[in-house]
Amino acid sequence: MPMLSESDRADLIGTAADLAAAAREATLLHFRSAGLSAETKEADRFDPVTVADRLCEERMRAILAHRRPQDGILGEEMGARAGQSGLTWVLDPIDGTRSYLCGTPTWGVLISVADETGPIYGLIDQPYIGERFEGGLGRAVMRGPMGERALATRAPRPLAEAILMSTFPEVGSAEEEAAFRRLSRQVKLTRYGTDCYAYALLAAGQIDLVVEAGLQPYDVQAPMAVIEAAGGVFTDWQGRRNPSGGRVIAAANAEIHAAALEMLGAG
Amino acid sequence: MPMLSESDRADLIGTAADLAAAAREATLLHFRSAGLSAETKEADRFDPVTVADRLCEERMRAILAHRRPQDGILGEEMGARAGQSGLTWVLDPIDGTRSYLCGTPTWGVLISVADETGPIYGLIDQPYIGERFEGGLGRAVMRGPMGERALATRAPRPLAEAILMSTFPEVGSAEEEAAFRRLSRQVKLTRYGTDCYAYALLAAGQIDLVVEAGLQPYDVQAPMAVIEAAGGVFTDWQGRRNPSGGRVIAAANAEIHAAALEMLGAG
Repeated sequence: MPMLSESDRADLIGTAADLAAAAREATLLHFRSAGLSAETKEADRFDPVTVADRLCEERMRAILAHRRPQDGILGEEMGARAGQSGLTWVLDPIDGTRSYLCGTPTWGVLISVADETGPIYGLIDQPYIGERFEGGLGRAVMRGPMGERALATRAPRPLAEAILMSTFPEVGSAEEEAAFRRLSRQVKLTRYGTDCYAYALLAAGQIDLVVEAGLQPYDVQAPMAVIEAAGGVFTDWQGRRNPSGGRVIAAANAEIHAAALEMLGAG
Repeated sequence: MPMLSESDRADLIGTAADLAAAAREATLLHFRSAGLSAETKEADRFDPVTVADRLCEERMRAILAHRRPQDGILGEEMGARAGQSGLTWVLDPIDGTRSYLCGTPTWGVLISVADETGPIYGLIDQPYIGERFEGGLGRAVMRGPMGERALATRAPRPLAEAILMSTFPEVGSAEEEAAFRRLSRQVKLTRYGTDCYAYALLAAGQIDLVVEAGLQPYDVQAPMAVIEAAGGVFTDWQGRRNPSGGRVIAAANAEIHAAALEMLGAG
């Protein structure tokens, strides 16, 4: 892929902002509405797909078809479309559909753009709170109810002083759960159920670690871009930068990343 | 206590609104600030008390000293002050200090006023989102990013279709955890770690059940007032209306309350 010019970068960032604005409208149209319809994608797992989820991805795809027809798309709801530019938009219209169904505003819209090495820019948007966390292409910034602030992850501290977040204990195999518990026992505080919002809090310097398993590319690429831009580390449980997902550890810095990886048993 | 006149009611509601406005300012002054100081109140339990927590209660007490000097006060941080009116303000400046420390906006300010029977009016405020849930003295309403809406709990549905929230699995004795798990196994979805925000979601008709243990009067009285005003049921695990806290079950309606109580083993 050729180097991106200044105007290429501005167009990618502007396109992402357009996508996020459309996603806010589409997701809030149905958030906390009474008769929310949900389907179950897998028979043995609760993973609702809402009307809003589909509407949101449709609207984002329509914008990309108009503004960036040469780019590829990988979306949670409607799969992959190949492109010719070497760039691919990776979209999760509602990350945290269970939170969305419950009314808890810790779900988010994940938008990122990747080259052959993985994500180069991403954003995590929380439409109900009106909060956006962006990273990559020279940006590392959040905007929300208290204005704009630079994103920067926390300085190193011992595991015994660290805050860990996860969608666990609900997600993961027995082996994954055991590894997670080894880590969880070492930290000061473990909090559950925040979905993609946990990655946003890590980028904003509020927490030290996020550990999850069973993730998809569209779950990880926007958080990866945001956290890397904020100074953090985002790898799989083998310590590799892995945009395809699976078992994920996001850390505020290299020191606590290494300490946590060792507890997960992959060190 | 004498019957409250229309102007008595208006003054109580107006005072609560003043308290909530002061609490928003005090709590947001330190929310997501870098050098948040925290003390541990009990040696063997993580229960941080922040600067914001104390500042917030001080400001609320100053307003009450001015506007309602005849009323009693029970606050989380500064204890009880007896009154002469038969009314007591029950204040939790930051319910969910762990969420507050993590930056997750599911903590809240709890403000209520009680007579000898328990709370007669309460509110749950989320300062960062700008959301307020009020119930009692003829009111059952929420205001937030999407405007104003009446609060109303959900219609009955089977446990197998219900959503349950709790601060569990972190809180509770072994016996309490076993009871909680009996219930949790019966429901469609269990979500953790939302603190007082879970009660707000129940009052707003988003979820069916909240079950917790080890609560204090200032943890339960505002949620109790809001949920009762929205049509829900708020009792202890024996099915009694119990403003002193302890083991709590809040339910969207009498039917699911009865079904859940049975699973908790108190039926």
